[in-house]
Amino acid sequence: MNDLSALWNASSVAVVGATERPGALGRKPVDYLQRYGYAGRILPINPKSPTILGLDAYPNVRAAPGPVDLALIMVGAERVPDAVADCAAAGVPVAIIASSGFAETGPEGAALQAEVVARARAGGVRLIGPNCIGAVGFHHRVLATFSPLFMAESVPFEPGGLAVVSQSGALGFGVASLGLERGLRPGWVVSTGNDADVTAVEVLRALAAEPDCTGLLAYLETVPDADALRELAAAGKPVALLKSGRSAAGSRAAASHTGALATDDRVLDGALRQYGIFRAHDVDELLDAGRAFSGPHRPRGRRIAVVTTSGGSGILAADAIAEQALELAPLGEATRAELAGIVPAFGSAENPVDITATVLSDPSLLDRSLDAVARDDTVDLIIGCFCVMAGADVDKAVTSFGRVATEYGKPVLVARTGADFLAPDAADQLRAAGLPEFPSPGRAVRAAAALALTGSGAGRRPPAAVDPYAVAQPAADADEPRLKSLLAAAGVPVPAGRVVADAAAAGQAVAGFGGTAVLKAVVPGLLHKTEADGVALGVGTEQAAWVFARLAGLGGDVLVEQQAPDGAEMIVGVRSTPLGNVLTVGLGGIFAEALDDVACRLLPLRTGDAAEMLDELRGARVLDGVRGRAPGDRAALADLLDTLSALTAGWRGFELDLNPIRVLPEGVLVLDAAYTRTKESGADA
Amino acid sequence: MNDLSALWNASSVAVVGATERPGALGRKPVDYLQRYGYAGRILPINPKSPTILGLDAYPNVRAAPGPVDLALIMVGAERVPDAVADCAAAGVPVAIIASSGFAETGPEGAALQAEVVARARAGGVRLIGPNCIGAVGFHHRVLATFSPLFMAESVPFEPGGLAVVSQSGALGFGVASLGLERGLRPGWVVSTGNDADVTAVEVLRALAAEPDCTGLLAYLETVPDADALRELAAAGKPVALLKSGRSAAGSRAAASHTGALATDDRVLDGALRQYGIFRAHDVDELLDAGRAFSGPHRPRGRRIAVVTTSGGSGILAADAIAEQALELAPLGEATRAELAGIVPAFGSAENPVDITATVLSDPSLLDRSLDAVARDDTVDLIIGCFCVMAGADVDKAVTSFGRVATEYGKPVLVARTGADFLAPDAADQLRAAGLPEFPSPGRAVRAAAALALTGSGAGRRPPAAVDPYAVAQPAADADEPRLKSLLAAAGVPVPAGRVVADAAAAGQAVAGFGGTAVLKAVVPGLLHKTEADGVALGVGTEQAAWVFARLAGLGGDVLVEQQAPDGAEMIVGVRSTPLGNVLTVGLGGIFAEALDDVACRLLPLRTGDAAEMLDELRGARVLDGVRGRAPGDRAALADLLDTLSALTAGWRGFELDLNPIRVLPEGVLVLDAAYTRTKESGADA
Repeated sequence: MNDLSALWNASSVAVVGATERPGALGRKPVDYLQRYGYAGRILPINPKSPTILGLDAYPNVRAAPGPVDLALIMVGAERVPDAVADCAAAGVPVAIIASSGFAETGPEGAALQAEVVARARAGGVRLIGPNCIGAVGFHHRVLATFSPLFMAESVPFEPGGLAVVSQSGALGFGVASLGLERGLRPGWVVSTGNDADVTAVEVLRALAAEPDCTGLLAYLETVPDADALRELAAAGKPVALLKSGRSAAGSRAAASHTGALATDDRVLDGALRQYGIFRAHDVDELLDAGRAFSGPHRPRGRRIAVVTTSGGSGILAADAIAEQALELAPLGEATRAELAGIVPAFGSAENPVDITATVLSDPSLLDRSLDAVARDDTVDLIIGCFCVMAGADVDKAVTSFGRVATEYGKPVLVARTGADFLAPDAADQLRAAGLPEFPSPGRAVRAAAALALTGSGAGRRPPAAVDPYAVAQPAADADEPRLKSLLAAAGVPVPAGRVVADAAAAGQAVAGFGGTAVLKAVVPGLLHKTEADGVALGVGTEQAAWVFARLAGLGGDVLVEQQAPDGAEMIVGVRSTPLGNVLTVGLGGIFAEALDDVACRLLPLRTGDAAEMLDELRGARVLDGVRGRAPGDRAALADLLDTLSALTAGWRGFELDLNPIRVLPEGVLVLDAAYTRTKESGADA
Repeated sequence: MNDLSALWNASSVAVVGATERPGALGRKPVDYLQRYGYAGRILPINPKSPTILGLDAYPNVRAAPGPVDLALIMVGAERVPDAVADCAAAGVPVAIIASSGFAETGPEGAALQAEVVARARAGGVRLIGPNCIGAVGFHHRVLATFSPLFMAESVPFEPGGLAVVSQSGALGFGVASLGLERGLRPGWVVSTGNDADVTAVEVLRALAAEPDCTGLLAYLETVPDADALRELAAAGKPVALLKSGRSAAGSRAAASHTGALATDDRVLDGALRQYGIFRAHDVDELLDAGRAFSGPHRPRGRRIAVVTTSGGSGILAADAIAEQALELAPLGEATRAELAGIVPAFGSAENPVDITATVLSDPSLLDRSLDAVARDDTVDLIIGCFCVMAGADVDKAVTSFGRVATEYGKPVLVARTGADFLAPDAADQLRAAGLPEFPSPGRAVRAAAALALTGSGAGRRPPAAVDPYAVAQPAADADEPRLKSLLAAAGVPVPAGRVVADAAAAGQAVAGFGGTAVLKAVVPGLLHKTEADGVALGVGTEQAAWVFARLAGLGGDVLVEQQAPDGAEMIVGVRSTPLGNVLTVGLGGIFAEALDDVACRLLPLRTGDAAEMLDELRGARVLDGVRGRAPGDRAALADLLDTLSALTAGWRGFELDLNPIRVLPEGVLVLDAAYTRTKESGADA
């Protein structure tokens, strides 16, 4: 066994630091493994006790009878290096270091952590942790943890397909406990602490490869590795991720918690959308995603039909759909006509379909409406809503929803806004029928988003790995004219222009461009030309000489360019980040910055990414022809993003700013471009 | 008894349409009142049965022995007018019409509804409904409803201070049932259906006046009456409102559900912020607000301290705080120094304060940290977070939180991210200690927002009622020069300008303004001057005559104005709406529209409202001096909003647009103004 699956499949577990002392952390894993019926060999390691809780104990892992599949190390930090060396010597493939006292405590701890990782790598041991609280494989009852989760005399569990991975042990096991309580049937829980060797994303990938795994939930504070994210998404299992540190304050708190540098949250957000990983915003949303993943069907798209017995629930669902990247399914004309014949006049035959409380006197209403809706090609997923229904009314509704889900192979999520005591068997009935259930329309909609936006849901495929591109990256800081010819060579539209040597040439150039042109200073290091008064617009032939003299006086070349027609202005930037090269688009001028309204994606973009970025950008509505202005050419802008992606995806350690880009009724023009080399870092190496 | 309190205090309840027939809706209220021990007189009304469920029945309300405090009318719509007439004749002060078949079904139903309301008003009967499912006063066991909520053999309840009011019966009783299940102890539930006579907001006001009422939750689809909202807020009880129809799709669905015209959701949003009514976005958030209201303490402000045993929970809380109009309390220097001496090195002595799991071995950590934080003047409310703690550890934490809340009189909300089975008594212990509890940091933070942002929380007072203002409203459409002198008279800064009669006067005026000026066509009905080429900027003396001729050719006067300095541009509009006069501010140019980024408030503004509007506006960051531009004068802009509020608060049926307003480094200038009269409507009459 040489992969991570020992964490959940181990046939033998060594507990390093095991003890019989009541209340001690080192007693718990041995106790849990025994009490919950682990069928493999339990190997307590303690140099001072020959037996622990009735089991033979060993002074160190080397002395234990092999093979040892998994070691859980719980000794003081200073003794961890030796324990890891023992694991290496004993050929243990995976060790969990639960001990604290490493990178989370400061530089000394970080040095100790580095030493431990070095020993493990030299010895072929993969490490989980340190500073974690262990892992649980429910299927084989591998309870390699001291979490209080199993302190109660007996926690009943029935292992299912849901995996929970968390950098925070407390939140990971907190989420898992809520999952157990809410009937979500977790199959795996792994806490990864400091991610010193194996990262949380690697564990997620390994779990996604388990055939029985049907969905994954993760709590992360740092995401070090875009490639791992991409591969995780490529595994095709739905993933929901609660990544904290979204806000500036949260990000500061996260940095203080883990010591790791925060990823720009917007970059991560863009990457997750791109790869089809659902981003949860709180614990309930994460668990609700897990519940949605438990259903037997996957939607083909993101068009939702709502069928409700309560008008108010339908409106709440419509509000929530508008806040997600989902659509209310339009429903075909035939469907709407059919519904008009079924639904009472004071209900609604439009989506959300409100069949009203009349269903209580005529239960066939629900069946007939659901059939009409489920049959409709514009519907990918159905949300059924009801409130305080009780007794047999609930039985009938559950039967209808379940039948339709099975018959049409479309997911049906149920929002039941009412107490369990109204229908004590409903939760079990819904679970048995494979119908994920939520306590409000809003929560059902967010869970539908988790289902529809994850890889296996909407058929989103991650982009291919980055290939080196034919156009070479400029070696040093390229000036504007050089940069523009490079861009033009790659197919990026730029204004016609030429560098002029003297006032006379400037005048001729202006005349050549029709008698009015733009003059710009080209000075190495002068990135903000406008602020430095290094740009003159609308220069006529008679002013050209004077303007040339002024700009030349700034100490560099002078560029004469064709004056661009009016239009909306956008900014596009590409830069290398620890997650990979990132393309960012926003409104031009001061607005992208002032409004904090930008869209980001990792490179390379996939087909469709560019258009999605523009859809995401609130400010892109300036391209829609507001106030009598002709609409801007969105398609040309999207093409520009794709061209830039192909051009720069393989570049390293750089920042390229196209600012502004003039968006014309037909085509776009890059009016200015700046390029700098930056230090290569992380994934960028 | 002549107010609405009969809904929950009635000493006698007539059930019009009562029947013994098993399963019939008309049986349920009689059954519920009997079964749950209502102590007053139950008066079944049915012309065909002399007794119902062992009680004497009467052919109509007139025939029942008086006084009748409350009538619940459940007969077919066509028989409702007579039933209401009977109530009037019998002196019944309040009648609930549960029957459907009124405005919700179309014009005929609307006419019938109008007739019923007219009869009721003529006879001195206040009406709840129609198209509702009744009301419950838990304290006196007035179960005037046929909701399935009480179908179970026995639903245990212990009445508390929470009121639930809903236009949707299904959602109202659904929310109430979840409240019961979650231990929130509702005291009142009223469903108001079509709001034909008494509105949901009136019911809320009446409940807010009940001494035992400690907080109110409402689900609304329409909000007809700003004055009622204002008075509700003035009652000083915390209110959380789930108003659906936020989105365009939801709003369409709401219009189809209720037939009422949708209120502009942004206007409502502004009004709720202004009046200190918390807006919930889903059912859980509404119930969580109710839980927060149940605590014994109110925060003085919106500064939150987070004390956590789990670093991850602290980060999630910080993220959630950043998304609300709340602040992370900065903590005084002394507090931070004290915490640095208490908290382990790998925790955090900054807010969020992470005391780490070390608390398990040293429980005094929590007590000492909480004391330091609660003592700090910058802290208005504390959120305590823990995850999978079990047994005695939870007992100790609950004791610490409870002691601190009592000792310092500050609210403490608890986020316990872990299953109940880990600490089966914790929920009861927390409730007994007056500590509202939530399953995640995010939900605790949103509940804290409900507490901090509601009237009684942050000491927000609603504005005074609108007074007529000394400056008279222009009677007809005023042109730009007249409007600007009116604005100037009220203290609104406008550029110097004069209307000129001929080309020579135009030249002189331009010269008088320093040789460059703005010329504008003043043509009745020409509102979009720029698009009509009716504005010329930067006109020199030599061009004045030619420009004058061109503008005069548009058919009206010509105005010469001083050219304004450069600066950011904003738009301010005031218009009358059914909710009252509304002031809106946004970015100038195409951006307010393109970005949908505006802030609204009802008039008159209170002190501080104007500044809050600018804080709310993402685009107002253009005033912060982005990109080397001098910052704009926010204070002068806020003054302008206040002046406009005083000027126009008493106006009726109008729309006033100041567009653009140039924001200078010192002061502001209204560059253009347009005014139209509109039809008066609703509250506007």
